[in-house]
Amino acid sequence: MSAPTNGTVVTHDELANSIRALAMDSVEKANSGHPGMPMGMADIATVLFTKHLKFDPADPHWPDRDRFVLSNGHGSMLLYSLLHLTGYPQITTEELKNFRQLGYRTAGHPEYGHADGIETTTGPLGQGLATAVGMALAERLMAAEYGEDLVDHYTYVFAGDGCLMEGISHEACSLAGHLKLSKLIVLYDDNDISIDGSTALAFTDDVVERFNAYGWAAVRINGHDADAIDRAIATAKNSDRPTLIACKTIIGKGAPTKAGSEKSHGAALGPDEIKGWREAAHWHYAPWEIPEKIYAAWRAPISRNRQIHEEWAQRLAKFDRKAEFERRIAGGLPEGTDKTIADYVAKLKADKPKWATRKASQEALKVLTAAIPEMIGGSADLTHSNLTNTPSTTPLELPTFKGRYVSYGVREFGMVAALNGLTLHGGVIPYGGTFFIFTDYARSAIRLAALMGIRTIVVATHDSIGLGEDGPTHQPIEQLASFRAMPNVLMLRPADAVETAECWQIALESTKRPSILALSRQEVPTLRTEPGTENLSRKGGYVIYGKKDDRELTILSTGTEVTIAIAGAKLLEEKGLKVAVVSLPSFELFDEQDEDYRAQVLGKAPRIAIEAASTFGWTRYVETDKHVIGMRSFGASGPIDKVYKHFGITGEAVAELGLKVAKN
Amino acid sequence: MSAPTNGTVVTHDELANSIRALAMDSVEKANSGHPGMPMGMADIATVLFTKHLKFDPADPHWPDRDRFVLSNGHGSMLLYSLLHLTGYPQITTEELKNFRQLGYRTAGHPEYGHADGIETTTGPLGQGLATAVGMALAERLMAAEYGEDLVDHYTYVFAGDGCLMEGISHEACSLAGHLKLSKLIVLYDDNDISIDGSTALAFTDDVVERFNAYGWAAVRINGHDADAIDRAIATAKNSDRPTLIACKTIIGKGAPTKAGSEKSHGAALGPDEIKGWREAAHWHYAPWEIPEKIYAAWRAPISRNRQIHEEWAQRLAKFDRKAEFERRIAGGLPEGTDKTIADYVAKLKADKPKWATRKASQEALKVLTAAIPEMIGGSADLTHSNLTNTPSTTPLELPTFKGRYVSYGVREFGMVAALNGLTLHGGVIPYGGTFFIFTDYARSAIRLAALMGIRTIVVATHDSIGLGEDGPTHQPIEQLASFRAMPNVLMLRPADAVETAECWQIALESTKRPSILALSRQEVPTLRTEPGTENLSRKGGYVIYGKKDDRELTILSTGTEVTIAIAGAKLLEEKGLKVAVVSLPSFELFDEQDEDYRAQVLGKAPRIAIEAASTFGWTRYVETDKHVIGMRSFGASGPIDKVYKHFGITGEAVAELGLKVAKN
Repeated sequence: MSAPTNGTVVTHDELANSIRALAMDSVEKANSGHPGMPMGMADIATVLFTKHLKFDPADPHWPDRDRFVLSNGHGSMLLYSLLHLTGYPQITTEELKNFRQLGYRTAGHPEYGHADGIETTTGPLGQGLATAVGMALAERLMAAEYGEDLVDHYTYVFAGDGCLMEGISHEACSLAGHLKLSKLIVLYDDNDISIDGSTALAFTDDVVERFNAYGWAAVRINGHDADAIDRAIATAKNSDRPTLIACKTIIGKGAPTKAGSEKSHGAALGPDEIKGWREAAHWHYAPWEIPEKIYAAWRAPISRNRQIHEEWAQRLAKFDRKAEFERRIAGGLPEGTDKTIADYVAKLKADKPKWATRKASQEALKVLTAAIPEMIGGSADLTHSNLTNTPSTTPLELPTFKGRYVSYGVREFGMVAALNGLTLHGGVIPYGGTFFIFTDYARSAIRLAALMGIRTIVVATHDSIGLGEDGPTHQPIEQLASFRAMPNVLMLRPADAVETAECWQIALESTKRPSILALSRQEVPTLRTEPGTENLSRKGGYVIYGKKDDRELTILSTGTEVTIAIAGAKLLEEKGLKVAVVSLPSFELFDEQDEDYRAQVLGKAPRIAIEAASTFGWTRYVETDKHVIGMRSFGASGPIDKVYKHFGITGEAVAELGLKVAKN
Repeated sequence: MSAPTNGTVVTHDELANSIRALAMDSVEKANSGHPGMPMGMADIATVLFTKHLKFDPADPHWPDRDRFVLSNGHGSMLLYSLLHLTGYPQITTEELKNFRQLGYRTAGHPEYGHADGIETTTGPLGQGLATAVGMALAERLMAAEYGEDLVDHYTYVFAGDGCLMEGISHEACSLAGHLKLSKLIVLYDDNDISIDGSTALAFTDDVVERFNAYGWAAVRINGHDADAIDRAIATAKNSDRPTLIACKTIIGKGAPTKAGSEKSHGAALGPDEIKGWREAAHWHYAPWEIPEKIYAAWRAPISRNRQIHEEWAQRLAKFDRKAEFERRIAGGLPEGTDKTIADYVAKLKADKPKWATRKASQEALKVLTAAIPEMIGGSADLTHSNLTNTPSTTPLELPTFKGRYVSYGVREFGMVAALNGLTLHGGVIPYGGTFFIFTDYARSAIRLAALMGIRTIVVATHDSIGLGEDGPTHQPIEQLASFRAMPNVLMLRPADAVETAECWQIALESTKRPSILALSRQEVPTLRTEPGTENLSRKGGYVIYGKKDDRELTILSTGTEVTIAIAGAKLLEEKGLKVAVVSLPSFELFDEQDEDYRAQVLGKAPRIAIEAASTFGWTRYVETDKHVIGMRSFGASGPIDKVYKHFGITGEAVAELGLKVAKN
């Protein structure tokens, strides 16, 4: 390492070392964190942020900024250091000093929403990379719609060995290669170290060959050679394919004894190592002390970027669809959407179709995608089962990126991570379909959407044993309960065509959390035919059939089993019992209603529940698990009617249990 | 296609067409299923089963049989046809006629346990392949232990485009390449078709180049050329690397208009197509009619295999460790294991260590892995966090496959699928570690273990917000509830070192379901110091502190929060309240106890619960969610004490809520 200069010229090493110092010192104070990655990738980050990245700390949400994603999120101090050094006002020295402390923005892993400049939450490995694929796709979709005068930016990703070992990296990068997302540039921290030690323990892929197989441009460079980094990024920016730059680096670079070892990966280095680093690097500043000239050098690129930003703003000001562009970026729906939905619901109530709820979803989507041009459909290779396509969502065409329907391939996890990236980028409202059972594959991406609080919409069809012959591997049992247990997810299971339309409205309106629509393969009648267009599903639960007051039994249900509950209720009425059936399309929304409303819906009479799914969690509303008709095992392969009967999920069973419970 | 011969010579085409006919006719009768894949892969299957596969329908569990895995499990009729034609007695013509019908062995997807010859349940794409990697690893581990005289077989996999698009194929095949599992042979159905149509819609990987990058041997052949198939398999059997044979095939081969199209993929072909196929193939037999000479030709290889089997049995009979080999294959534990555990538990009760339960797990594993040589440890790159290694589990060495600890890399899903394959192969008892949060990545493999009913053991450390600084991306919230909702899983969360040892005993004994041990990063005292070595955790729940009778409040809890519950109980006792604390290491085991026992443990007094996790599902045991101290949001990054306090999970909160509830 060269010594710092005395004059006003700031060297690359000084810039990179300012990252290293901040990362080491903050991890040391927290006595927790990962110094090795920021120290190893400091040179790459320095070149990217000072020579290439298009960003403006004064307007961090500028729609045409380059996106930067730290997929190896444990190296969060790299990002916080960069945001601090380049002048994002929220990441103060005080924040750095309180790294990983409760109530500060500088969490252990970068948390979307904690601070500007954090484009997505990362930490679960591989997902940042997969989310970035969605961002890069959004860029192309928006460019196709609004032109490159307004949308023309890169998506940069830092990723580590762990990211590239994870399966999701395959799904995401295979998809990115297929789509030729040439403005996606991944800088791979090829440091030969993972937590357990040398990557030779478990990981001997030829990564460059692998990415070539995906149709990427892939090169190897020395990740500590600033010129090589600069040249590789410059080349990547002009590639016709996505680029992987495998940067050979030394983890914990500069730490006297721990550099190049897993010992620098996930723990504070200790005072001796830090002292030794300071001496070798000629870094004679106190912890968190950054000389003004170094700050100035970090912030020098801002004037260049600000000019680009200014020119962009002038182009936008003159753009004839400026209002639409801005509305889409802000995430609001087109004016008149509510009326569009209300008119459609009114028609449903008149027509009373007998549809599978997946079919009801497609019919709703026909109306919605026609009215909302930013809706982008897609499926993980189950389009004709999920019924996620409509006349408006024409297939995506390459290389123009015209079209509004993405074939994600058999890549459920990659799809939902891409949905997250599309959503985070802004300007589009994506939804993606798969079988409900395969949300198991995508679960961690749905969780990240919930944690970030973003509008990711998953269409999950074949939502129960009602799918029949495909059998237990394909029949969801515990998925409803498992998402009800997940914070900040709207788990929606509509009972008929009307509720399906209502749930779509809810999903579109819910900008601060993801929604999952669980939809049936089998047909159900339209149950909701009352006049008016109030969206009753918004309340999560309501009396859909029978007596509101004076009842002797309440039957709770969701989805396709509401029809069965009503059949059971009718049998009970024949026996003279006063019954109400409550449809509960969303536990979450129902629990958010005031106590009076909930008490009124649930009533004072004994309650039973029926749902063709794990009974787990229904004791939230009924006294005991014994009062729940549902699944206590996996399903079975067979025609739907036989399967429902086999598991005792029938109107007769409702009547039998209801009579017993009401009489007690 | 050539015409059938009139004599006794049976051609390859006749053999392959017998598969096609059975598949077409069974799907047609069920009016449900996937004819295209069996028709496309019939030639490959014919060559494999008649010329290469080592198996014996008369002893389908012969330990040294080749393993055959149909990873593209929707083509289940291929497997059922093969089992029927080669003489597995369970798959009768009656079974084929009742394909996908309730109560028959011939489910929509192959279900492990339904019939001999089904080596694993498949359907969720990619997982069969990943499970096969575990089988192939088990073969090498057993060969290293017992020699190739007793263990020397191949693992064959059929896989489709969907399998290779799924992320898990990356994890599994990268691992297999790293381990140089040269006896793993994958026959890839490279038919250019997936459900939505041409794979060109979404999948343009160079698969051969990709697998070369993993260190595999990968070749391309014509999947309808019997000689080419034969040669490629013969070459693969002598490879020093795992082999991928990309077989270019025509989906639905021979169907007049639907061959080569997604129309033959997932629905009955219809009578016209079947008639046309019969004519073109000169197949003049009635549905399910197979001439004796064709049966005979299918079964001819059996005599060769039976001789191999017989020679193997003779070698085993002379083997000096025959009893141990047979015990390990049968899955029983070594004699004396119970006493080993009892002695260890007695020592714990005397020593009263203050350990994190992950540390308690490692200490238990030290004892267990010393006593049980078939235990094979491992971690998804978190060994020193999961504490899954012991002095007995020396690292796996290549190419000898000596050693008992597998570095699975950052591949949680691939790891658990491999654990399933190791378990299914038999002879080893594998366990694998990761953070509890990353069971989200592996969830579908855990589900398959539960569905199959096999002893897969997952060590899931850092089991709550108690992990502290890593923050909400790493803090499990809903994972406990989500596994409690999953059928046939033992979700174990021990409270101290004694319960941890007990839970390990339970996991090892539970041969018919998987276990997940949720273990803490933070320390807890030894709570269980009573005399005796009864494994109380086997009952799922029991009074761990305080009054059994005559109580005014019962506090339910699990894991590290049992210590907090007891702290709260002591505060309440100071106020004169009679309190019991119940530890519930397993909801499942507790629910399996008789009503009397459960009533006695739960008591008649009001109940509250405390767990540092989603409160969802606790209403199973307490009256209302309001009586649960737990998480109703994601966690936060910060030191553990502050995080627990921030979310109100404290002894003081227990006392406050307890007082309120008891007094009502």
